[in-house]
Amino acid sequence: MADSTVPPTRDELDLRAYEGRLSRPIREKAAELQEGTRLRHVIFAGQFWPALLEDLAETADQIRVMSQSRPGQDFLRDLLANRRVMLYFTQPSTRTFLSFTAACQILGMVCNEVRDASTSSEAKGETRFDSIRMFSSYFDLIIMRSPLARLAESCAYLMNDLEQSGQRSVPIVNAGSGADEHPTQALLDVYTLQRTFQFENPKDSPVGRLDELRTVHGYTELTTGLAGKTYCFCGDIGRGRTVRSLAMLLAEYPGVRLVFVTPDHEKLRMRDDLRQRLANKGVPVVEVDSLEAPIDGVPTIEAIDALYMTRVQKEHDTAEDAESLARLDLTPYKLTPALVRRMRAYAPILHPFPRDQHFGEIPAEIDADPRAMYFRQARNGMWVRAALLAHLMDADGSIDRYFHRKFRERHEYSS
Amino acid sequence: MADSTVPPTRDELDLRAYEGRLSRPIREKAAELQEGTRLRHVIFAGQFWPALLEDLAETADQIRVMSQSRPGQDFLRDLLANRRVMLYFTQPSTRTFLSFTAACQILGMVCNEVRDASTSSEAKGETRFDSIRMFSSYFDLIIMRSPLARLAESCAYLMNDLEQSGQRSVPIVNAGSGADEHPTQALLDVYTLQRTFQFENPKDSPVGRLDELRTVHGYTELTTGLAGKTYCFCGDIGRGRTVRSLAMLLAEYPGVRLVFVTPDHEKLRMRDDLRQRLANKGVPVVEVDSLEAPIDGVPTIEAIDALYMTRVQKEHDTAEDAESLARLDLTPYKLTPALVRRMRAYAPILHPFPRDQHFGEIPAEIDADPRAMYFRQARNGMWVRAALLAHLMDADGSIDRYFHRKFRERHEYSS
Amino acid sequence: MADSTVPPTRDELDLRAYEGRLSRPIREKAAELQEGTRLRHVIFAGQFWPALLEDLAETADQIRVMSQSRPGQDFLRDLLANRRVMLYFTQPSTRTFLSFTAACQILGMVCNEVRDASTSSEAKGETRFDSIRMFSSYFDLIIMRSPLARLAESCAYLMNDLEQSGQRSVPIVNAGSGADEHPTQALLDVYTLQRTFQFENPKDSPVGRLDELRTVHGYTELTTGLAGKTYCFCGDIGRGRTVRSLAMLLAEYPGVRLVFVTPDHEKLRMRDDLRQRLANKGVPVVEVDSLEAPIDGVPTIEAIDALYMTRVQKEHDTAEDAESLARLDLTPYKLTPALVRRMRAYAPILHPFPRDQHFGEIPAEIDADPRAMYFRQARNGMWVRAALLAHLMDADGSIDRYFHRKFRERHEYSS
Repeated sequence: MADSTVPPTRDELDLRAYEGRLSRPIREKAAELQEGTRLRHVIFAGQFWPALLEDLAETADQIRVMSQSRPGQDFLRDLLANRRVMLYFTQPSTRTFLSFTAACQILGMVCNEVRDASTSSEAKGETRFDSIRMFSSYFDLIIMRSPLARLAESCAYLMNDLEQSGQRSVPIVNAGSGADEHPTQALLDVYTLQRTFQFENPKDSPVGRLDELRTVHGYTELTTGLAGKTYCFCGDIGRGRTVRSLAMLLAEYPGVRLVFVTPDHEKLRMRDDLRQRLANKGVPVVEVDSLEAPIDGVPTIEAIDALYMTRVQKEHDTAEDAESLARLDLTPYKLTPALVRRMRAYAPILHPFPRDQHFGEIPAEIDADPRAMYFRQARNGMWVRAALLAHLMDADGSIDRYFHRKFRERHEYSS
Repeated sequence: MADSTVPPTRDELDLRAYEGRLSRPIREKAAELQEGTRLRHVIFAGQFWPALLEDLAETADQIRVMSQSRPGQDFLRDLLANRRVMLYFTQPSTRTFLSFTAACQILGMVCNEVRDASTSSEAKGETRFDSIRMFSSYFDLIIMRSPLARLAESCAYLMNDLEQSGQRSVPIVNAGSGADEHPTQALLDVYTLQRTFQFENPKDSPVGRLDELRTVHGYTELTTGLAGKTYCFCGDIGRGRTVRSLAMLLAEYPGVRLVFVTPDHEKLRMRDDLRQRLANKGVPVVEVDSLEAPIDGVPTIEAIDALYMTRVQKEHDTAEDAESLARLDLTPYKLTPALVRRMRAYAPILHPFPRDQHFGEIPAEIDADPRAMYFRQARNGMWVRAALLAHLMDADGSIDRYFHRKFRERHEYSS
Repeated sequence: MADSTVPPTRDELDLRAYEGRLSRPIREKAAELQEGTRLRHVIFAGQFWPALLEDLAETADQIRVMSQSRPGQDFLRDLLANRRVMLYFTQPSTRTFLSFTAACQILGMVCNEVRDASTSSEAKGETRFDSIRMFSSYFDLIIMRSPLARLAESCAYLMNDLEQSGQRSVPIVNAGSGADEHPTQALLDVYTLQRTFQFENPKDSPVGRLDELRTVHGYTELTTGLAGKTYCFCGDIGRGRTVRSLAMLLAEYPGVRLVFVTPDHEKLRMRDDLRQRLANKGVPVVEVDSLEAPIDGVPTIEAIDALYMTRVQKEHDTAEDAESLARLDLTPYKLTPALVRRMRAYAPILHPFPRDQHFGEIPAEIDADPRAMYFRQARNGMWVRAALLAHLMDADGSIDRYFHRKFRERHEYSS
């Protein structure tokens, strides 16, 4: 018998069943994943728009302020204490896992986990979709990370179908699917930039407030916010899904320019689809092979408003890749204290972490520089994920009311 | 030196120490495992009797109603918030594990787990019983699943002995031991049947209430409850411990008839001991090899009040089994939409899950049928396990009082 | 190129960076790890002093009394409910892990865990110190166990440096590092001795109160407390880090004598450094090879106030060790009922557990003897770890106030 006569597994059939929906334009898909202006599921970075990003940042700011006092902490921990979460992480990830866990715990949600596909019933022939329905029977929210592209998206459609037929349905959050999407990483990158470019909190903008930067430091045209700035991505552009997602989100802001610094190697340089999508948005894009390459007549390192460093993701190398990469000089894609000294005084350095101690894209000497935002960025991730979960579970309004009530009270007391 | 001179390990001695108690008749053993009408430990399905099953179902119903409101959820989560649970699962099981975890969390109990025997101190020569005493030092309840038959039962006796000598002792719940017993699976199967045969809730009895079924649908002799009905088990009867346990529980209800549909293969057909035990109970048993086989002159599929499908548990096949099973035609043990159409309108389809997508004992097309109860069954498992834990921890009375107080209040407000 | 030109990894550089601090005298190091009389980090047993050990025992006693009532439990569970803990256990340990987990849960802290270094970002080239900073971003306390000696200590210095530069810093608790230190095990051993030598609670001192022991049993010179007693350690002295730590703590008490019963084998007998440290303290030390060896003209087993049995840690044997150990007669290092009968009536038998059923250093027949304190010791560990965590998080004062308020209230009600 030929292979073509082997009947497809139900897993294959299930994925095929969603094929039509998976291949729709992003706008249509995004519409199915939200209700009004509230997200039902978080699947790809393209679901976020600037106004929503501002709302999430505001909620995150409120949560972090409230978390500084015991009454605020207690209020938050009670908020979703009646909700149980499943973290279904079949692709290993300590950092993202712990960040989501902490975010859930801030809001009082009880966390449960399945981290190894082989321990689940899938070994007994269960389809992934039966597993997901099991999780949705016991838990109120599923946060999932999978090596399989589009699994999270398909699960969101399954949940929508269940809801339509009057059955139990819970929100799905994509915490990384294949090489595809990692929307909440993009969210925390944006949140870190939002906080830095408020030029208010000395921990986020260590050099000074906007007026100081304009007068003392001479950045006379500097403005607050993400719009009108030049963002530089350096290193492994091709395989960095966080780069892809963040670039697309920044493209939503007016006046933004994106610079990609990467060697001319097919695995590391920007992929055609991202280049095309950015072109469709009409965003100015610059591709160079060194932080010294001039843009506007100034070396890149001196011209940019923010620098996003990345790790070369060797774990995805084929033998061929490893060989061709070994012939490249990757020194220009490592940051040095000398380079940092030439950066704009306020320009934050980000990195999605982990960084690679052996490659050394960011040496430890730089950690003490006030522009080094990468550790703070990790903690930002916890806050903004908590904000996202509060949004998904419709609890952001309660946070806002509590925040303003307490704020007003304090104001009354002090006045 | 001959093997007979090798001194036995303490593990072996410990198990021998319980040998006398393990081999007692079930009635005697059950007596040791309860105090009055309250269970101290849950070890085998034979500990349940119809009145207790009714009580547990009532508690489960109360818990699910209370879980629909935030005050009810808060009441439940506070109930056993002072209790810590150990889930000691050295036999992998995602589904049972998560169901118990969710049940604990509904009642506010904090869950802890040990899932891999090799990470425990047993690798350093610790006996299983020392491990269990360690767990009982730190936790207030032990839920255990083990590949070793009768380990849970032995642990229950250890706890009873400790209690007698004035030492710390905690309840043991058997969440599956070897090929032996899985009492809480039987409990959730019964609970699903109890809810369906109430003919009240449209989600549990989608076709209609009892009077409609009797008049419109023509099931003139239909009654509520589990008594007087014909239950059909299909597939892998021999190796399905859930089938064994459920069959024995149903045998406690008057007027019940049990039909087993299975190929004549020594691993799949009913085992002699179950046949004997059912005969001792005086329950009418029918063994056939097809859902088309006539009973009372009607094909089985049309004559039954409930259908319990099972997965063929290939993971237990020897090479010989695999070969002989491959020669069998197992098509008759797969449900099809055409078969489902011929079932009684109210007859629920159950399955202990996971189902096997490769074998296909229940194809996905059937999921939308109102008689398909297997997803609901999973959620029922969570509720009835919560009820069981409340019973064990002596908290069911508090639930009942809260439920009736709130119910009366609501009644007063509305009147 | 020669090896000397290979640049060191950042992990190596980080460890080198702490080298100077790691090699300081213990007194200097201890000073850096505390603030006033409160510990900031718990790294080695040498940080404890008798007055602190008394305070911790008192807090532990208060916690266990409070845990007997629901209001007390609720008070404790609320105390640190706003704190999230990371248990970073890259060296397997079920017992210590669960004991800490239960201790955290008593105080309401939410536990999180990373147990397998390979699942963390370290596989992607992250330094251990970046991992620890990540944990400190998300959590409020890090309890760590590592095969790497001095890692916990280095992490404590990292946290101190972060605090100095105004960055987020959390306490580090060493739950076992290499063959080096296991300070909380020593703490629970001391606590068990403290409770036993109070001669008050019949569960801790089963034979009787002090006056009975002095008059009826004829131990006329017996006093309460740890001072002035003879402690015997038996078995694997060389590789038992709990023996090392406990011996050093007991050496702080006046009038203490230490007896080590171990075969003359280089891996099992006392190491030179411990012998030297005890000599520096001026503690009388007796090294013998049998529990029958006379001290003060009486066989050891009859002369001692407490017996600390140990497991022979075969898992650390080299092939050579295994061979040379096989030639030894280790029978004298196993306790027997006959030996126990000859012990002083009040002398507790301790064991850090797990015990080895194959070696049999404590056979099960001894478990029922009132002097067998090893199961109680495990539960003591949970209470005293809770006390230690309360101390670290500055919550012991609240416990003390609640305890005395309730105690007074009860007194008022009853008077």
